[in-house]
Order: sequence, then structure tokens, then C-alpha cells
Amino acid sequence: MTTEPIFDTAHLAHVELFTDKPQESLDFFVDLLGLTESGREGDSVYLRAWDDYEFHTLKLTASNTTGVGHIGYRATSEAALHRRVAAIEALGAGIGWTEGDLGHGPAYRFRDPDDHVFEIYFQTRKYVAPPEERPALKNQAQRYHGRGAAVRRIDHLNLLANDVAAIKAFLPQALGSRVTEQIVLDSGELAGCWFTVNNKTYDIAYTRDFTGSRGRFHHLTYAVDQREHILEAADLFLENGVFIETGPHKHAVQQTFFLYVYEPAGNRVEIANAGARLILDPDWQTVTWTETERKKGQAWGLKTIESFHTHGTPVVPLRHG
Amino acid sequence: MTTEPIFDTAHLAHVELFTDKPQESLDFFVDLLGLTESGREGDSVYLRAWDDYEFHTLKLTASNTTGVGHIGYRATSEAALHRRVAAIEALGAGIGWTEGDLGHGPAYRFRDPDDHVFEIYFQTRKYVAPPEERPALKNQAQRYHGRGAAVRRIDHLNLLANDVAAIKAFLPQALGSRVTEQIVLDSGELAGCWFTVNNKTYDIAYTRDFTGSRGRFHHLTYAVDQREHILEAADLFLENGVFIETGPHKHAVQQTFFLYVYEPAGNRVEIANAGARLILDPDWQTVTWTETERKKGQAWGLKTIESFHTHGTPVVPLRHG
Amino acid sequence: MTTEPIFDTAHLAHVELFTDKPQESLDFFVDLLGLTESGREGDSVYLRAWDDYEFHTLKLTASNTTGVGHIGYRATSEAALHRRVAAIEALGAGIGWTEGDLGHGPAYRFRDPDDHVFEIYFQTRKYVAPPEERPALKNQAQRYHGRGAAVRRIDHLNLLANDVAAIKAFLPQALGSRVTEQIVLDSGELAGCWFTVNNKTYDIAYTRDFTGSRGRFHHLTYAVDQREHILEAADLFLENGVFIETGPHKHAVQQTFFLYVYEPAGNRVEIANAGARLILDPDWQTVTWTETERKKGQAWGLKTIESFHTHGTPVVPLRHG
Amino acid sequence: MTTEPIFDTAHLAHVELFTDKPQESLDFFVDLLGLTESGREGDSVYLRAWDDYEFHTLKLTASNTTGVGHIGYRATSEAALHRRVAAIEALGAGIGWTEGDLGHGPAYRFRDPDDHVFEIYFQTRKYVAPPEERPALKNQAQRYHGRGAAVRRIDHLNLLANDVAAIKAFLPQALGSRVTEQIVLDSGELAGCWFTVNNKTYDIAYTRDFTGSRGRFHHLTYAVDQREHILEAADLFLENGVFIETGPHKHAVQQTFFLYVYEPAGNRVEIANAGARLILDPDWQTVTWTETERKKGQAWGLKTIESFHTHGTPVVPLRHG
Repeated sequence: MTTEPIFDTAHLAHVELFTDKPQESLDFFVDLLGLTESGREGDSVYLRAWDDYEFHTLKLTASNTTGVGHIGYRATSEAALHRRVAAIEALGAGIGWTEGDLGHGPAYRFRDPDDHVFEIYFQTRKYVAPPEERPALKNQAQRYHGRGAAVRRIDHLNLLANDVAAIKAFLPQALGSRVTEQIVLDSGELAGCWFTVNNKTYDIAYTRDFTGSRGRFHHLTYAVDQREHILEAADLFLENGVFIETGPHKHAVQQTFFLYVYEPAGNRVEIANAGARLILDPDWQTVTWTETERKKGQAWGLKTIESFHTHGTPVVPLRHG
Repeated sequence: MTTEPIFDTAHLAHVELFTDKPQESLDFFVDLLGLTESGREGDSVYLRAWDDYEFHTLKLTASNTTGVGHIGYRATSEAALHRRVAAIEALGAGIGWTEGDLGHGPAYRFRDPDDHVFEIYFQTRKYVAPPEERPALKNQAQRYHGRGAAVRRIDHLNLLANDVAAIKAFLPQALGSRVTEQIVLDSGELAGCWFTVNNKTYDIAYTRDFTGSRGRFHHLTYAVDQREHILEAADLFLENGVFIETGPHKHAVQQTFFLYVYEPAGNRVEIANAGARLILDPDWQTVTWTETERKKGQAWGLKTIESFHTHGTPVVPLRHG
Repeated sequence: MTTEPIFDTAHLAHVELFTDKPQESLDFFVDLLGLTESGREGDSVYLRAWDDYEFHTLKLTASNTTGVGHIGYRATSEAALHRRVAAIEALGAGIGWTEGDLGHGPAYRFRDPDDHVFEIYFQTRKYVAPPEERPALKNQAQRYHGRGAAVRRIDHLNLLANDVAAIKAFLPQALGSRVTEQIVLDSGELAGCWFTVNNKTYDIAYTRDFTGSRGRFHHLTYAVDQREHILEAADLFLENGVFIETGPHKHAVQQTFFLYVYEPAGNRVEIANAGARLILDPDWQTVTWTETERKKGQAWGLKTIESFHTHGTPVVPLRHG
Repeated sequence: MTTEPIFDTAHLAHVELFTDKPQESLDFFVDLLGLTESGREGDSVYLRAWDDYEFHTLKLTASNTTGVGHIGYRATSEAALHRRVAAIEALGAGIGWTEGDLGHGPAYRFRDPDDHVFEIYFQTRKYVAPPEERPALKNQAQRYHGRGAAVRRIDHLNLLANDVAAIKAFLPQALGSRVTEQIVLDSGELAGCWFTVNNKTYDIAYTRDFTGSRGRFHHLTYAVDQREHILEAADLFLENGVFIETGPHKHAVQQTFFLYVYEPAGNRVEIANAGARLILDPDWQTVTWTETERKKGQAWGLKTIESFHTHGTPVVPLRHG
């Protein structure tokens, strides 16, 4: 018998990234990715894309390491939040409540099976544009400056995990996520898994961490409106000495048009465009890619670059296989 | 106190259009818009875009008139469907159950306050591509042929109504729709209203019918992945003698990049691209446009063409003032 | 018998524009159009697009008026320059030699039949990028900053003239220009004429000045690489309060994708993309558009905006017809 | 002392390709590249892109081999043609006059130093569109169908040669070509050379043939108007099982946005977009790329695929080094 889908979690809300080159990282996110600073507190700078509706979607925190601090999701209501908290506590994954942050109210923190820290909250601080950031069209969060890649909104993130199957068992119960696509190796091992809580085709993905480390980060993605904007961004990155890892090209999995770069501290950042692709089907059946299918490379034949399988942050030595 | 949002309705599923030039209309939708025929029954041809996941999204029915036959929405589950039916019956808008159609199972029919016929269902027939329509990438419903405008999926429709405020009172209760944007005239009258049941910025819009007729149709929209595809479609329509009413340009309301044409029977068809714009905020506040603001025309200053306010199908004489 | 084509003139090189709001105009050209200042002298600022190979393509001169100062063309060789000077002198249109300017060597000045001032020269100052403007790819004149509309190179200009037929008789003899397209009214009058000296489809166009004034300016155009860049520029202009006169749309004549704005002093500026369209045929036959054909509006049906026929700089009162 | 540039050759006009799979090759060029058949004679089918102004730009000839038959250039006038013939004869490269072909009048044939066969002519047969191919806009050669990649016009070709330096010495004298870019290895050897006779940045390129064979072919290129059209073509090729060798990406040399595929007989075909890039400078200085610079790969970092250096047609065994 079919159970009803869960609609308690609205969307991926923000990601905290650690950087050991805080000024260079900030310059990258503001001048080249095109984010706007909306606040500062302690060692953190709060950043947002021009059509993100909340106060911030990236919390950039100076640190002696790199990688992800925590991942925030917003619930669809106060009641939904409490349903999620109960579910997470039942999973034994809970950390506890925080008082909130510059950008939102009380949040409940928890850990995924690979020790990445998450939080979920409902009360938020919607962005109110100061006069110089007021857009010409009132249905837009903030003025469009066309600065750098001029990304529109946060899209998704990708984390590394030792046991992707454990994540696949966890997230649907914790957040109500659905698995839209996955890669299953010939050995039966789950090598990659894409999740969504809404109509986006994915808001978080996990891929296998071959190093044996825990809690590592693969990439954070912001969306632009058109594929051409990604080609323009590639030129900007080229001119500004940003390391382009791979792309622009189109993924076979999820069909996203992508460009991957490393921000100065080494965290991987993606600019992406999904076109008009959405998951509208409430009983979407997970698409499973086999090892053979994935060996074909990306959609138009680009071989997946080796570092895409090995580079995560923080950087750790590769264990022997 | 805030009530929880309703997630019972998954998405706009299909639209039935009447045509009194059935062969010419069919040729337009297949050769120029790029839809694929998935079935025929009685006076109807069932059509679909290449990434629509259901059997059909357009039911084109030969008739002695034009305009809309009915509008179908899919529920998020069987239980959700029955919650909606109960709500609709409580509103006194119900017509009753049908046995379903080529493309879906039992559906509950009802009328909006302007007498447009709707239906809602859960059991559906997902499209299974025959060998010649099997896509290269398995996460896509059907092969991409690049034929005509090669639209990707159904996006939204626009209906005319005498009393848009009555619709605004009705749809949120009937389907759980949210009002994302609206136009309120200086007189206080609601001139236009945009609704969504999911993360799309709208799946249905209503604008004032100044003729006093009921149940009329304004336009049906299919989405393409990139704005450039709309520019290419404009060239195709030009070469093939299709009447281009207005565009390509960008709407101020909802910021959609658009192109409006009339199919041979006179029904207005839009090709649109919304970029990466989504409504992710679960408590999105309706954006209200004033009469003064709307007099500025479209986003980049194009004056709204007169026929956009007057042409609907079926065509009726304009009433005196 | 066919005479041989003339290849003495290489290309449109630069345009001098007058502005009575010099700082606002400069801000527009640098921040919004994306030009770079390459020098200053007297009341003039010299500006260039990032892939213009010469020192400057726009000389912006503070003045008590608006409109065009002079138009510069570069010859294909020293010998070719002298052939052109001889031809111009034979036409009685010569003014005489100047010592050159910041951006080029000795130039020969002359007037067209409507009293616009032209110059032609061969010795030029090629742009040498200072370190901070050095591009990542050595086959590009200057670094790409992605600032504002980030136009690539000068494309063409459009002048007003009382007697377009007189221009059509003059330019082919003076510069060796070819007439690629023209508009002939039912009265037989030549209403518009497009000229080129090379493989571009046009580098200068003339349209009828209905005011009876002489030497007026219609617009100056810079090219971008893709149509999508023009759509992005439209958003930037909207956000920055720049007056958008018309577009984006596609011209029927020459098929250019266009966007017209007024810089702060009122001079009309166009951003354009011609796609891969070139005139490669050495004996191209002029395309003649009739009055009836032009009444269809632009390529996709946009009606030509009234001000396009009336606004030129400097602004003058309209004479009675 | 500077000599005057030569303007005797107007443009690359057509290429004859051999195919040993004539029907499959024809289907590829018509259905997927989007060319139109304009005639047939003997073993050859004559094909054209929708905005090519001549009768044909591709002569596809059934054969027991693959590769290039001959390359045609059009002169700028009858007198220019005879000047070129005299120059070619003086170089000792002449073959002699032909009576012409379906698409043009008498042509003078000659060989380049690597034994590729060329011809040059002036009298041509301009394409006259039959009623069903008449375009909506009269300044366009043929109707735009949007079929397949829907390429606009022939752009350039690339040939392999044992001694690229010998070609560099020959073409400027034979055709008046200019060398716009080149690759010089650390050994001093010329590994690649790009030539143009007009404002296009190149119409022919030569790269080193490491097999020691003569007269081989690397690729033929058609231009599309926008980079996005190349992304769409990649999807079409994917769906239709066409082998995509590399791309879409942007070349560092000449900055062309490219996609390379093999037509069914193995001849490499490129779809390209150069944006608004032109060589307008009459004394353009050749851009020289070093071996080190070329090791960086393409513009955005894509490594040049191995087969790009080895695959040519006809296919021959690789000689030992």
C-alpha cells in the first residue's frame, strides 16, 4: 500500500562553508559568483544570491579548515517542523535546538549517518532590500546587478559519505526527502543518490567517499537562469584565474548543465542550469543508473574527470583501497 | 494564526482544447509546437510534450467551437484526492465522478465560479515510450526530436472570468492553490490573479473577461528550457505563417519570458521560459501590482497589446461598456 | 560590364559623440555598456569595447549639444587611403588633413551630402593592454570583465539625412561602400539605406530626417556575442533606470537582434547581435524593401515605435510636413 | 615596406566530401545537420545550408573512400580570378580549367603542397529558392526549417598536411590568404595554421598529419547563429546515435565555440559559433601560440582529445614516429 508523501520540509535553505582563506573566498563569492553580503557576525559573513528570499543562503565562516559547517532546511510550517523533529529524534539523530542565527529563528540540529550537521527551522528572516538593493520589479527579492556569474538562487549541495545507502535510509525519514535518481554499482553498492523535498529534481546529493573520512563536502551549487550564463561565467573564471575543474557540459544524471570551479580555499562550487526540468510527479519512480551506463561519461560524452571522484573538502589523504 | 499549507494537489495535468479546424490545429501542435500524438479516441487526439511524464497533457477535441473543454489536475495521493473532493463538494461546486480517460483513472469533475470545468484524479497512466520514442537518457520521458518549438512540458493556462475575486476565493479552498501574484485596479477590482499548487510560480492564471461571457479561455502555455529556444520558435512561426500576437518579451508579472501565437482555430498558445525562478517559500506573500504599475507595460517597456485584453476563445462580441 | 569591387576601406573605426551631460554619459558607457576608458584629452574621453583592436572606438566629447562629432573609417593600406582621398576630392567633398588624434595618425576629413563629418586614415594606434587589462587568451584585445552589457566591439552607426538618395550616390564613390539593403517608398523616395565596406552586413545606415535639419545622428551600435546577452542587458538597463526605447526584438531589415536605449544625454545607443550573418558574396544584389513590406513591422511583428522615426540628436522641433 | 593586402578571393565556397556510406551520410547531412539538397549529378548530391547564397556548399560524392574531393573558393571578380590564376601558375601549382559544375561556372583547379585539390572561380549560380523554400524575410537565401542542427552557412574546413610551413608559404601567394593564428612548437615546427581571405577569422586551417599520408581531411564546419544552438544540436546527436568526439567547449585558438561529431562515413564535422568575432584589422599581426600555451587545453581547460590529433579521413595506419 502506498503511503502518502511527506510535505513537511519546504526547501534547502542555506549552507555554512568553512574557509581558511576567508578574504579570498569572500572576494570570490561576491565579485565572481555575484553574491551579496547581507550581514556579519563573529567569524562569519552571510551571503545571498539576488533572488534568494531569505536573509542568507551561504554562511561563510573563517576557520582553520575547509568543507561544510552545517546545512539548513526550512520546514513548511511550525507544525511540520515539530513533526520532523519528532521523526529525527525517533531516528536517534538529534543534537538539539539552537536559538537560531542572523537569518532565522530557532532551529533543530541533527546529524546524518556520516556526521554532517543539519538543522531545520520554520521561523525565518525574509530578506528586506535596503534602498540601494531594491529591484525594479517588485516580485524579485533584490536588485539584479549582473556582477560576476550573477547567480539567481541557491540550488543544491553534494556531500560525501562512506555509506550512501545509510543516507538513503535516513533522509526520507528525517526530512521526507524523495530519491529521484541513484547510481548502483555492479557490486550492488549505492555510489550516488539524489534527493529532493520539493519539485526541484534534487536539493542534495551524496556520493561515495573513498577516503574513509567522515562529514566531507563535495560541492555547493547556485542556479542561473540560462545555460548561456554559464558559458559567460566560464570566461569570467578564466580571466580571473579561478580553477575550472570541468565543464561546461551536461550531466547525464539529472541532466543539469554544469560548470565546476574551486573557490580559493578549495571548496568546489558549481554553477548550474536545469532548464524547465522539474519533478512534478508525486509518485516519481527512482531512476537507477548502472555502472555500465555511468561509464559512458556525461550526457554528451565528456569523461568524468578523475578529481571529481577524489577531491572533497577538507582535503584528506587517500586511503589504500 | 497561520494554517498549514495544503499539499493535496500535485500539479496541472492536462487541458482539453476545442478546435473547429481539427486537422490544422493538430498540424500546428505536432509540427510547429513539437508535441507528439500519444492516442486518439472519438473526436479527440491526445498530445504530449517530450518530457511530460503522463500519457497526455493536451486533449485536442474537434468541435463546432473553440476554447477550453476541461482542465485536469493530479492529486498527490489517493487520500489527498478524497480530501479535495470533500472540500469541493462542501463548496457546492461538484459535478461528480467520471470513469477516467485514455490518460488517467477515475476523476472528480467540478466547476469554477465562471463555469470552467475542472477534474482532479490520482490514478494516472504514465507515458511508456515505444521503441522509436525511447530517449538516450533514461531520466527523460521521451526522445527529444527538436521538431518545431520542441516544447519540454506543459506549464500553465490562463482563463477568463467575470469575477476574478470569486475565483480567488474558490481555488485555494478547492485545490489548495496559493495566490502568488495579482493585479488590483484603483477601483479595488481584482483584474488578474496567478495561482500555484506547487513550486512553480503559477500553474493557472485568471484575468477579467470584459465581454460578460462565461467559461472562456485565454491561453495555454508550454515551457521550453531556454529563452533562446523561444527566439528560434519565433523564426519558425514567422516562416510558417503562424500569427504572432506579441513577444518575445519578458512579463513584469511573474517575469516569464514569453511568445504568444494563435493556433489555426484561434486559441492562444504561449511558449514560455521562467529561468530558475521558483516559489520555494512556504509562506510566500502575494505580490500585488497596482493599476499604475501595470501601465508601465511589460518588464522591458513593451506596451501590452490591445488584443491581449480582448481576444479569448470562443470569440464573442464585445459588450458595451 | 561589371566593375571590380573597391577594397580600399577596411572598416568603421570610431565615432565621436557629443554629450551635454558628460559625467552621466561616461558613467553609462563605462558602467552599463561596459566600455573601458583608454585616454582623455581636452573635453574628450576615449572609450573602447574589450575586443576593439584600436585604441578607441568611441570619443565622448563634452559639449553644449548632442549628436555626432565625426565618424572615422580606417583604410586598408596607405596607398588605399590616398586613392580614397583622391576620389573624395574629385567629389568636391573634402575638408582636408588633420594631424590625427590620440588613437590614430593623419586623417583626411570630408563631409557627406548631409554635412556629417567623416575622416579616413590608415596609420593607427593599436590597443596595447596594460597589465591589469591583459586577457587570458592572447588572441583577444583586452580582458573581458563582464561589466554591464559587456559589449564586444563597435558594430555600426545610423545617421539621419534629408536626402538619402544623395548619400547612396556618395558613399560608394567616397569609401567604396556597397548598398546591402534599402527601403524604397511607393513614392520612389529612398527612406533608408544600409552600407558596408567589408563582410559585415552594414557598418553605416542612413534614414530620412523628416525635420529638415542637417547632420543629425540616429544611433550608435555595439555588438555582443549572443542574443541572450541582449536580454541580460535589458534587465540591467531596467534596474538602472535607463530608458529602453524598443526591443529586444529582431529587425526584418538585416535581421539584427536589437535593443535600443537612450544614454543620459539622449543619444540613442543600440546593442545588437547579427548571429553568423555576413555578406560574403562579392556581387551581392541590394535587397529592396517596399513601403508595404515595411508596414509589417519588425521580423516577429513588433510595430516600429513612433519615436524611432522622430527622435534624433541633437533634438530639434519637427517641421510641418 | 608594407605591401598592399590582396582582395582577389572572396570566400570559401564549397567542399567536396567523399563517402563510402552515401545514403547514411546524406541522411546525416539533411536530417541532422539540417542541410537542403539542391541537386544531384552522377555520384554526387549537392547540399546547402539555409543562408548559403550559392547553389551548394557541400558536394557529397559516393566513393570507395572518405575525405575531401576538392575545395572551392570564389574570386571577387573576373579580373581577380585571372590574377589568381596567374599567381598560381607562377607557383607551378596549377592543374587547369574545368568547365564548372552544377553550382558554378568555369573554375581553375590547382593543388596545395600536400596535394589537396582546390579550385577558384567567379561565375556562380546563386541559389533561387523554389516556392516551398521561399523565406518569409527576403534578405535570407532560403526558408529556415529548424530541422536538425539547422546550420546557417558554411564556415571553414581543416586539412591535414605533412608540412604546414609549406602551406603557409603557399596559400597567401595563391589565394591572398592571411595567417591569423598559428601554433609553433618548441622545435620551431609549425603545427597548425589558420588562414582567411576576408573578415572571417579563418576559412581554412591546416594541422600536422603525423601519419605521413598526403591530402587528408580533418573537418568541415558549418556555422550556427548562437552557442545555445550547439547545445541543442548535442542533444539531437545524442538522441540519434551520432558519435560526439568532443565538445561543446570553446577553443583557445580563434575562440570558436565548437562541437565535433563524425558523420556516418567517418568524416569529422564541426558545428561552430564565433560570436561577433571578426578580423577587421587590415594589418592584423599573426597570433602565435607556443607548445606550452597549447598544453593548457581548450579555453576553459578541456584537454584536447587524443583522436583530434590522430583521426583524419581517409583513415590510414599511424606510421612509426
